Amino acid sequence: ATTTMSPLKIGLIPADGIGKEVIPAAQKLLESLPNGPKFEFVQLDAGFEYFKKTGTALPQATIDTLKSECQGALFGAVSSPSHKVAGYSSPIVALRKHLDLYANVRPVVSVPSPAFPNQRELDMLIIRENTECLYIKSERQEIDTATGLKVAYADRKISEYASKRVGTMAFNMALSRQKLREQKPMNQRFWKNNPRVTIVHKSNVMSITDGLWRETVRAVKENNSEQYGSVDMEEQLVDSMVYRMFREPETFDVVVAPNLYGDIISDGAAALVGSLGVVPSANVGDTFVMGEPVHGSAPDIAGKGIANPIAAIRSAALLLEHLGHPEHASKLYDAVNAVLADGQTLTPDLGGISTTDQVVDAILKKL
Amino acid sequence: ATTTMSPLKIGLIPADGIGKEVIPAAQKLLESLPNGPKFEFVQLDAGFEYFKKTGTALPQATIDTLKSECQGALFGAVSSPSHKVAGYSSPIVALRKHLDLYANVRPVVSVPSPAFPNQRELDMLIIRENTECLYIKSERQEIDTATGLKVAYADRKISEYASKRVGTMAFNMALSRQKLREQKPMNQRFWKNNPRVTIVHKSNVMSITDGLWRETVRAVKENNSEQYGSVDMEEQLVDSMVYRMFREPETFDVVVAPNLYGDIISDGAAALVGSLGVVPSANVGDTFVMGEPVHGSAPDIAGKGIANPIAAIRSAALLLEHLGHPEHASKLYDAVNAVLADGQTLTPDLGGISTTDQVVDAILKKL
Ligand SMILES: CC(C)[C@H](C(=O)O)[C@@H](O)C(=O)O
Ligand SMILES: CC(C)[C@H](C(=O)O)[C@@H](O)C(=O)O
Repeated sequence: ATTTMSPLKIGLIPADGIGKEVIPAAQKLLESLPNGPKFEFVQLDAGFEYFKKTGTALPQATIDTLKSECQGALFGAVSSPSHKVAGYSSPIVALRKHLDLYANVRPVVSVPSPAFPNQRELDMLIIRENTECLYIKSERQEIDTATGLKVAYADRKISEYASKRVGTMAFNMALSRQKLREQKPMNQRFWKNNPRVTIVHKSNVMSITDGLWRETVRAVKENNSEQYGSVDMEEQLVDSMVYRMFREPETFDVVVAPNLYGDIISDGAAALVGSLGVVPSANVGDTFVMGEPVHGSAPDIAGKGIANPIAAIRSAALLLEHLGHPEHASKLYDAVNAVLADGQTLTPDLGGISTTDQVVDAILKKL
Repeated sequence: ATTTMSPLKIGLIPADGIGKEVIPAAQKLLESLPNGPKFEFVQLDAGFEYFKKTGTALPQATIDTLKSECQGALFGAVSSPSHKVAGYSSPIVALRKHLDLYANVRPVVSVPSPAFPNQRELDMLIIRENTECLYIKSERQEIDTATGLKVAYADRKISEYASKRVGTMAFNMALSRQKLREQKPMNQRFWKNNPRVTIVHKSNVMSITDGLWRETVRAVKENNSEQYGSVDMEEQLVDSMVYRMFREPETFDVVVAPNLYGDIISDGAAALVGSLGVVPSANVGDTFVMGEPVHGSAPDIAGKGIANPIAAIRSAALLLEHLGHPEHASKLYDAVNAVLADGQTLTPDLGGISTTDQVVDAILKKL
């Protein structure tokens, strides 16, 4: 049977700062995949710079186009105003919510490179709940009538619904990573144990919210022992988690965390594998995926042509993986790893002297 | 003039697990200070083990004795039940609140020791707001009537009152650390810049609560430019903070953070200086101080006589410092550092084979 493949339509949202440099880099790699899928790219607006021009950080047109026309997207990075700006609210947080991208998937894997001879050997996947916790942005300020001073409150929401679906994803990912390791022995370098899910929480203080989180995620395994029986389950308080991550990062496989803990842990984990400039993420929902480098907009180096494109390129690979093209994703990862292993073409954040374009060209040559 | 010094009355609350081993160790050192202050120690109950026996984790008698009779206290560690236990609530969080110990002061300093040849050189002081944020424990669970599923909420409180007093402490500590460095050049090893306060927040998401935090702490300097003009001020988002802490820990002097971020950051920082077993803290109020090692109750090694007593001993030194005996505190720190530099008598967490008692004896010999 011959099928005419319609192209994959991907929204590109470079947003602010180096987002404008690394998203075109990732696009170039996607377009250059040998025998790769056909893409149709559409440029979309969002970000703080766009807000300063127009008064909105996330135009409705961007949401509508993504929802009605695209299978996936690549998001760059947003600049955060250094102080509260009336009417401004983070477009990335809003996009996750509008598209119901309920899991933020962040693989953190050692980067074999002569630039980091003493790197720890790790291969962990952080899965961050992406829709609630303190990110619901339900906040208010009052005046304490007794003192005349300001008091502010934020609501932290943890639901059984959201905890269950992201917990289920964590156990499924633990199994699929195990399968990949069996297929590709190279992937067994760093993880040789049973698949494992580490549940992060702080239920010794937040016994009700984190208590619900912990119980719900535990129940995913407990209620499906046939399916997930081979996956070990452990728990870790968030403070000790950060400690353990730096002491024994090789003891983690899949880590699942509420939104804010996941945000903090994944930036921290990036410090273990060279630089924030190499760590990708995917915002995953049931019908849409959005790749997003973990790094920020890096205003200090924006416009200089030296931003590390690897996090964005790996985010494009993650996008491919989740859109059903794991073989092309794998090729892209291998090309990136070859350039890192080679150690000749690295941006300054990795101790090199190469430009964004030079790194892109080096990866292209390895494809 | 001859004054009869009345003894310092100190409450000892070993609580759970290795708390029962490290608090007696710290007590022994305090009693053995050459020409040291006179102490009167009083043993007080609290903890999860006490809860299991009596149904209360923090008896009123402990609070009353501390409030009415003691100048300070030493707290060991609490075990957290692995799941929600009706009626149980963390006694350490409650003690901080009852005694209005509004700042948790956590110095993290490189430990010169042959056991850690590649240690980073850092000398930071983390000041953690100690009374609010998610630690107010205002939580509730509801049932979503549409789905029948559980939804839980927690309140996060940030007040101008609490932010201002802990922010003021941060700037004062930055100045007093600077003074100490001038007096004791040895202390300038790791910090050679202007005094600096780093304000940690996540106001790009929590614009109202963390916005209030950030503005209030900034205002401490802005409204007292004469007093604090020599102190540099910078801000850091909590996710990037953890990243930066591991990439360039030597760039921090005083770090001030809301309660939960401070909890996470200080455990993480401990990983940079050898072990959680060496990092002390003091819970500081206007009229009371409680020393507390940053580590937990370590049920896995409790009762084996191999717990590292250094965090508790340094917490005793911090207690002395805040009770107006900086010279004795300094002697205690020096003795601890001599044992670490020596590297012959270390507990297993630091790669050694010594017992708690052997470490105590080694420190005693250096006094
Ligand atoms: C920019 C910010 C709102 C965002 C977050 O906290 O989620 C970022 O740190 C991230 O991790 O994607
Ligand atoms: C035991 C726990 C409640 C406590 C906290 O989170 O404050 C501990 O982690 C600490 O840092 O003292």
